[in-house]
Amino acid sequence: MPQILTSRFLFGPGPSNCYPEAMAALSWPVLGHLDPVFIERLDRVCEGLRTVWGTSNARTLPLSATGSGGMEAAFVNTVSDGDVAVIAVNGLFGARMCEVARRCGATVVRVDHEWGQPVDADRVLSAHPHPKVIAAVHAETSVGVQSDIAALGAGKGDALLITDAVTSIGGLELLADDWGIDVGYAGTQKCLGVPPGLSPFTVSDRAFERRVKDPRSWYLEIGLLGGYVGAASGSRTYHHTAPVTMIAGLEAALDRILAEGLDVVQARHRAAGTALQEGLQEMGLELFAAEGARLPSLTTVKVPDGVNSAAVRAYLLEHFSMEIGAGVGEYTDTVWRIGMMGPNANSASVTLVLGALKEAMAKASV
Amino acid sequence: MPQILTSRFLFGPGPSNCYPEAMAALSWPVLGHLDPVFIERLDRVCEGLRTVWGTSNARTLPLSATGSGGMEAAFVNTVSDGDVAVIAVNGLFGARMCEVARRCGATVVRVDHEWGQPVDADRVLSAHPHPKVIAAVHAETSVGVQSDIAALGAGKGDALLITDAVTSIGGLELLADDWGIDVGYAGTQKCLGVPPGLSPFTVSDRAFERRVKDPRSWYLEIGLLGGYVGAASGSRTYHHTAPVTMIAGLEAALDRILAEGLDVVQARHRAAGTALQEGLQEMGLELFAAEGARLPSLTTVKVPDGVNSAAVRAYLLEHFSMEIGAGVGEYTDTVWRIGMMGPNANSASVTLVLGALKEAMAKASV
Repeated sequence: MPQILTSRFLFGPGPSNCYPEAMAALSWPVLGHLDPVFIERLDRVCEGLRTVWGTSNARTLPLSATGSGGMEAAFVNTVSDGDVAVIAVNGLFGARMCEVARRCGATVVRVDHEWGQPVDADRVLSAHPHPKVIAAVHAETSVGVQSDIAALGAGKGDALLITDAVTSIGGLELLADDWGIDVGYAGTQKCLGVPPGLSPFTVSDRAFERRVKDPRSWYLEIGLLGGYVGAASGSRTYHHTAPVTMIAGLEAALDRILAEGLDVVQARHRAAGTALQEGLQEMGLELFAAEGARLPSLTTVKVPDGVNSAAVRAYLLEHFSMEIGAGVGEYTDTVWRIGMMGPNANSASVTLVLGALKEAMAKASV
Repeated sequence: MPQILTSRFLFGPGPSNCYPEAMAALSWPVLGHLDPVFIERLDRVCEGLRTVWGTSNARTLPLSATGSGGMEAAFVNTVSDGDVAVIAVNGLFGARMCEVARRCGATVVRVDHEWGQPVDADRVLSAHPHPKVIAAVHAETSVGVQSDIAALGAGKGDALLITDAVTSIGGLELLADDWGIDVGYAGTQKCLGVPPGLSPFTVSDRAFERRVKDPRSWYLEIGLLGGYVGAASGSRTYHHTAPVTMIAGLEAALDRILAEGLDVVQARHRAAGTALQEGLQEMGLELFAAEGARLPSLTTVKVPDGVNSAAVRAYLLEHFSMEIGAGVGEYTDTVWRIGMMGPNANSASVTLVLGALKEAMAKASV
């Protein structure tokens, strides 16, 4: 038998708890992927995604894969054997970009940063004289750091700018067109408040013209995907069976976010993140991410000396049914990651997390 | 505003209507992808998938992509530049395999069959003396034909056998181990009665040993995916954020199917398909797929002369909120595809479809 259902407060790095509108939409009647009602739904989703991406790109769509699939789609469509990819690395997902780009055949120029620090645009832009692509993570989930993508866009020259917006889309300011993002990918399970499984994806006309014409991947080829959403001519060409139910959930979440107001939602994320970070510091804890580059949607905080990270997380799970995240890599046991995303980005969440963490630190470590 | 919700009878080639247990599970509380309760769920799903695949393969898992993503995973993990892939083509999905394999660098030996006919194992097995892989579709959704995979397995020699089971898994007999399937992929939105978005995937130890060691795809690499589900050592390595909600739906559907009894479910699909095919012939219609190779889960029937296929389908959609499928390729306007899958595989569905089709043919074509 399956285990008894357990509800969870999801304050980790994602998935977050989802907007109730999104969860309700998952049980809407299933539609065929060629049904006119579904096609209209898909069009509305693409339009809503343009709003949260801050773009007018025709090729803006929910990719039928998770955020990591979106990362792969970004590179497989832009680099092939011998193309130079300059990649900023200030956490796990920048490092993953290097591996994905390498497999696509790119010559990777990796620009490492200390974890916890934002991307240094000058170093990245001067790393190679004429890269095919420059790539960076807007909101590094592994370290809780946001970087200045606009600075990369301003100096990119002929290069295409790839941006990971998994932990910013729907919660932080994101202006793909103004910032010069050519290819962007994201996830649904963070600030958008939808379960994981789709990757909001956007490609500029400039990137589309300079795309890899016969990429190794059929499933992720932007030419075929663009045809499916009718991006080019208004006519549609069957590609694969769209995940219709997840797309219904995404539609409902986008409607909810845009009804609340994207600026209001962003302000709610900022307020929750700021309150959490202040509260943690008032408890005597030290934040991990550099001041001035701290993500509101995901806060990283150092585990105090003498406190057992895993024991605290286990206590929270057992006594509060609450998930917070461990750190990543060498920081697994020395950093916690606490998300305030989607419907969780509010002052009640902050109070709950701070109270629970205080109790857990007192009781779990003795 | 989104369009008013419309329920649909989904009697097309898929997605089908889903098991109510699966739809209910989609609104279960979202869990973190590292939550112990989710890990137990994932283990149960992998075990249930082994049962419906008819395999004991450790590397049996729900891939975070649709069936077409599963197809790509099958080839990207088994063929690279210059490897020979013999591919049986008796419909659209066999043809798609050729394109996907080509992009992976394979030298494709394509063995074409007349559409509507099953795969001729002798021709396929004699097409090349020492291919790296042999691939065929078990249940060709585009033509409603099933083929003898066991015959390919018996004669495969050193080759790895890749099989598409998208429209057979969960509804037709499928014995991956007995038939000699090395790599199999499927979809959830047909006989399994779950919305589209996951690809049940299985890889034999033999195929794993002979896999492409550094495949072009990071997202679909079976080595990394096997690590995530703890296939090798029992320990787990984070790969990507699993689509936790879709996996909950799949768990519920598998539980439902196995509680009903896999043999009972298969018998229900056979009975519904047979009754539909007899009923269509009694109406004077001619079936498209060759006798003896007709899929119970998906029936293809010729559109009678003088009948407008699109008008009939539009009538069904408008008056019955019912979807049936058009044909594929050159048969778009001359063949209908009618699915009896998952919860829809029952006698009431047959009566409803036959009655609705009779009315639509009488009224929509005048």
